[in-house]
Amino acid sequence: MAFEIPGFQFSTACAGIRWTDRPDMAMIVSDPPARWSGVFTTNRVKAAPVILGMERLTEGHPLSAVIINSGNANACTGKRGIEDVKELCNKTAHLLKVPDNQVLMASTGVIGQPLPMRKMEDTLQTLIVNLGESTIEDVAKAIMTTDRYPKWEISRTDIFPDIKIAGLVKGAGMIYPNMATMLGVFFMNAGLPVPILQKVTRRGVDESFNRILVDGDRSTNDTVLVLDNGSLMGEERTGLLKKAVTNVLNSMMRSLAERIVDNGEGVTKVVTLIVEGARKWEDARRVAESVGRSPLVKTAFYGEDPNWGRIMAAIGYSGADIKAEDVDIRFNDALLVSGGQFMGKVAESNAAEVMKNRAYTLCITIGRGEESYRLITSDLSIDYVKINADYRS
Amino acid sequence: MAFEIPGFQFSTACAGIRWTDRPDMAMIVSDPPARWSGVFTTNRVKAAPVILGMERLTEGHPLSAVIINSGNANACTGKRGIEDVKELCNKTAHLLKVPDNQVLMASTGVIGQPLPMRKMEDTLQTLIVNLGESTIEDVAKAIMTTDRYPKWEISRTDIFPDIKIAGLVKGAGMIYPNMATMLGVFFMNAGLPVPILQKVTRRGVDESFNRILVDGDRSTNDTVLVLDNGSLMGEERTGLLKKAVTNVLNSMMRSLAERIVDNGEGVTKVVTLIVEGARKWEDARRVAESVGRSPLVKTAFYGEDPNWGRIMAAIGYSGADIKAEDVDIRFNDALLVSGGQFMGKVAESNAAEVMKNRAYTLCITIGRGEESYRLITSDLSIDYVKINADYRS
Repeated sequence: MAFEIPGFQFSTACAGIRWTDRPDMAMIVSDPPARWSGVFTTNRVKAAPVILGMERLTEGHPLSAVIINSGNANACTGKRGIEDVKELCNKTAHLLKVPDNQVLMASTGVIGQPLPMRKMEDTLQTLIVNLGESTIEDVAKAIMTTDRYPKWEISRTDIFPDIKIAGLVKGAGMIYPNMATMLGVFFMNAGLPVPILQKVTRRGVDESFNRILVDGDRSTNDTVLVLDNGSLMGEERTGLLKKAVTNVLNSMMRSLAERIVDNGEGVTKVVTLIVEGARKWEDARRVAESVGRSPLVKTAFYGEDPNWGRIMAAIGYSGADIKAEDVDIRFNDALLVSGGQFMGKVAESNAAEVMKNRAYTLCITIGRGEESYRLITSDLSIDYVKINADYRS
Repeated sequence: MAFEIPGFQFSTACAGIRWTDRPDMAMIVSDPPARWSGVFTTNRVKAAPVILGMERLTEGHPLSAVIINSGNANACTGKRGIEDVKELCNKTAHLLKVPDNQVLMASTGVIGQPLPMRKMEDTLQTLIVNLGESTIEDVAKAIMTTDRYPKWEISRTDIFPDIKIAGLVKGAGMIYPNMATMLGVFFMNAGLPVPILQKVTRRGVDESFNRILVDGDRSTNDTVLVLDNGSLMGEERTGLLKKAVTNVLNSMMRSLAERIVDNGEGVTKVVTLIVEGARKWEDARRVAESVGRSPLVKTAFYGEDPNWGRIMAAIGYSGADIKAEDVDIRFNDALLVSGGQFMGKVAESNAAEVMKNRAYTLCITIGRGEESYRLITSDLSIDYVKINADYRS
């Protein structure tokens, strides 16, 4: 069982980093070693495993293993943090009998506490012994923090039925463009060269994890890795392959991104926000982020209140080139504002009806041009506050 | 009674705009007409009274009266909104027998509904009849929306004991740099010329209402007016006067700004955030706004949790020039992070002790230079969500 993608093996174990009653460490091993690409947080404060990951990406060695832990982010841990992550990677490399630079680590959890090294080192041996006994879903479970459910997918390309792509992600709170507090690992046996892998990864992330917005915060640990252990093919095949993989990977990333929002801390609404008719792409993005991030708009989502005045205000202070009298606002099919004017009580109750759903689309047309932007956002609920006020205590 | 500043008279009345059991309209009359200056919202979506106010400020006529209402913002009301505000101003001018362009209006409340003109026009007569029968506090009460208490102050300058300055403000939710959803009117009999009045107002607002941050939203209606009906004096006196008035007005504005935060929707913590040691002023501002606006930091304030990891993350994604290893974080006297490193359990419990207070200072030193920035922010509480999810329903 569990060999869902040829050459990849998984294991999970309970190291007792933060919890003693659930797996909190996972290992992913690729044999043969995988070509890989990665996208890391843009936060200036980067966790130790991110610093190491960025270094190793530059070096360009293949990857034999990735260790992931939840419960401790190994961020703001200074030199000791860097030494710790290196030691765990080196020890894994030693046990697997591969070069040191072929192992990476990703961490998520509380910031500023040193890793419990003794417990984690002891667990490495177990992880290696158990290799092949866990599924992708088990790994997705082991790396959860405030996630309510594990998030993973496995798929195959249409044209090359032997090529499989799988991915697992962790993320719930602190989600903002640029992937705040999310970890994602994708695996495949496609056989794409590294430069193409990098492009495909960057583009996929830009249109998925960089388009989700729960609370506007960005974390120190965000990491998306894409591993490919397939054999390299000739150039003709590569073109077709790139297209096939891009399609599958993009749609997988978008779907997992949407589940991250759905899984957001205290989320009761998942809103696809589409801004159309901007003169510049940047204006569309500004409007989408301003509206999607506004606490007043998000509490109105929570209250199922079509409070379009708050949406207008957020459009107005977005910094985008807009005129109130050109703005249309629509909840699914219900046109609430047309040319900046409220469409009346019937329109309002139609919009309120749409807002009772858990998921719907809010479309804002600003009538200035052709550019558009799409992101996924959520409401701001009482539970969001409860969960985050109590997270450590 | 009630003639607290020579030449100014106040009245309030219940027009039944949104509530039937409380005053919701107020009038301020100055005789002689006052020289004035104003600062208005930077939101691209401006309410009708803001559009009129900006026009009249440019025209440079003195003011005889200001009408204020709560319960309806007269924003996103199109041409009709502009006509309505003009009609109410003109009718007031007519009743007071002053030129039309000597009357202004400010509104706050729900967006997108036309003003109930019949009710409001009928109330103008009452307001004029009642002139002199209300205090500044009565006006401050009549313009409240979600405010928990009225906010006003009256003071005199040290050097010129005959010169009095008073101010009243409204504001609770939606407060962000640039004065979101706040109205403020200041009165004095100082005798400053308009250009000086404009400078004093702009500077006062920049260092007070533009430095408070409850939820990151900015409104369509923000307005601060400063009226001066004192007689103009010679140039020598003006220099001294400017200094005296600036001092009093600035400290009054800062204190009222702090009370707006204290009065913020669901606020349980008032945090003075000081960022020091930035290379550029802009960096200090970025760090302060990033931290002060982060929902995760604000829920930690609410939970009285010295979760410095969230503060570090918010510093890191602020876009400012920082290095994690240069950062110190202090709650009042309790040093929690030094050189980017957590100071341990004792430090943590000291900081937690400070966080039990309703008001405290969070000082962040980024060790790169000499520039600093100060703002007042609040927590994000369960009540914030409750109040804003239920505001209209």
